[in-house]
Amino acid sequence: MTDSGNAVVLLSGGLDSATTAAVAQRDGFRVHALSVDYGQRHAVELDSARRVAADLALARHVVVRVDLRAVGGSALTDDIAVPKNEDPTAGGIPVTYVPARNTLLLSLALGFAEVVDAFDIFIGVNALDYSGYPDCRPEFIRAFEKLANVATKAGTTGGAFTIHAPLIDLSKAEILRLGSGLGVDYASTTSCYDPDPGGRACGECDSCQLRLRGFAEAGLKDPVAYARR
Amino acid sequence: MTDSGNAVVLLSGGLDSATTAAVAQRDGFRVHALSVDYGQRHAVELDSARRVAADLALARHVVVRVDLRAVGGSALTDDIAVPKNEDPTAGGIPVTYVPARNTLLLSLALGFAEVVDAFDIFIGVNALDYSGYPDCRPEFIRAFEKLANVATKAGTTGGAFTIHAPLIDLSKAEILRLGSGLGVDYASTTSCYDPDPGGRACGECDSCQLRLRGFAEAGLKDPVAYARR
Repeated sequence: MTDSGNAVVLLSGGLDSATTAAVAQRDGFRVHALSVDYGQRHAVELDSARRVAADLALARHVVVRVDLRAVGGSALTDDIAVPKNEDPTAGGIPVTYVPARNTLLLSLALGFAEVVDAFDIFIGVNALDYSGYPDCRPEFIRAFEKLANVATKAGTTGGAFTIHAPLIDLSKAEILRLGSGLGVDYASTTSCYDPDPGGRACGECDSCQLRLRGFAEAGLKDPVAYARR
Repeated sequence: MTDSGNAVVLLSGGLDSATTAAVAQRDGFRVHALSVDYGQRHAVELDSARRVAADLALARHVVVRVDLRAVGGSALTDDIAVPKNEDPTAGGIPVTYVPARNTLLLSLALGFAEVVDAFDIFIGVNALDYSGYPDCRPEFIRAFEKLANVATKAGTTGGAFTIHAPLIDLSKAEILRLGSGLGVDYASTTSCYDPDPGGRACGECDSCQLRLRGFAEAGLKDPVAYARR
C-alpha cells in the first residue's frame, strides 16, 4: 500500500464522513480524524464518530468542543423544531442550516493539520443530495483551499494544502456502494437530526429521508434502527 | 451620525481589537462584539474584552468557547514556555502562533454575522507590527472575504460580506493615536501573553514589547501595570 502521509478527516458520525474516512485510508493516508462537538442536541453523533474511528482503526481521533449556543441561529443548536416529512430536495435553505458550519469545521481541520504535519484535509460534503447548503458546493471547497494556503505557516513555507471532497458529485446511493465496497459498517453511523431518547432515528427528518432513499436506490438494507418505519 | 447597520467585531481584549471596535462605531455601525475563549492560559483577556465592551457601550457582546487543547500546537494553549526578551520583529514565525487562529475567529464571526444580519466584519489584524503571523496579511483578508461570499446563505442570496481590517497598515503608535482620539481607554485592555497571578503584564514577551514600543513612539503613557519595569 502506498504511504501518502498524514491527512485530517472531518468525522461527524454520519454516513458521508464515514465513507470519506474509508476513501482517505484507501488512498494510503494515515487518518487523523476530527469531530466537533458544537453544542449538538444529541451526543449520539459523537458516539457514532467514535464507533466509526474504532471500526476503521484510524490513527487518531480527537473531539474539539465549540459552544455555538452563544451565537445561535439553527434548529440543530437552538430550540427551533426540526422539520418533518418535508421534501428535502425542494430547494431553499432549510432551518437546519448551521451558520458558516463547514467554514468553521474546515478552520478547525486546518489548525489540526498544521499540528500533525498534514497537507491533505478530507470533508464529506455532497453537492448532489446537498439539501441546499451553500457550503457544500465545489466553489466553496476551492475558495477554502485558496484561503488555507495564505492563512497558515505550513502553506506559506513551501507546502500546499489540498481540500479533498471525494463525495461531492456522488448520489447517496453511490456513496453507500462506495463505502460498502471499502468495508464501512453503516450500523455505526447516525444521520438523524432528531433521534428518540433511545437513540433511534426518527425516519422523518430531511437527513433520514435522504439516507433511506439512498439505501433503497443502492439496493442495500439500512442496518440502523428507526423509531417509526 | 450615519446608520451603517450591524457589524460583527472580533474583540480579544487587546489594544488592536479595542481600537477596531471604536473605528466601527465611528463609522456608524451597531457593534456586535464576539470574543473567543479558545482555552487561553488566562481569563484576563476575556475580562479585558468585557471591560472594553462596557467602556464603548457596544450593542452586544458574546463569548464563544472553543476548546483547542485537544488539537494543541501553540505556547498560548499548550505548556510550551512563552519566549521572553526576544526581538519580536526578527522574522520567522513565533511559537506563540495558534494554528489557523484568524481563520477560526473569522469563521465564528461569519456565523454570528449571519445570525444578526450583518454583512460587515471587523478584525484588528496588523501587518506592520505583525510578529510574523501569516494570517495577518492583506492577502489572507481578501481570501477570507471571497470565501465568506460563497460559504453562506447570506452571501449567496443577494448580500455581500466585507471583511474590514482598518489597522492593517498602521504602526502600533498610529493605532494608539487613532484609538486615543476615539476615546478608547487602554487601561481596560490586555496585551501580555504571560501575565503574573495578579493579572499584571510581564513587560517582556513579544506582545508587551510591541505595546510598550508603540506607546513610547506615540508619546503616550501606557496606563496598565507591569510586573517588571
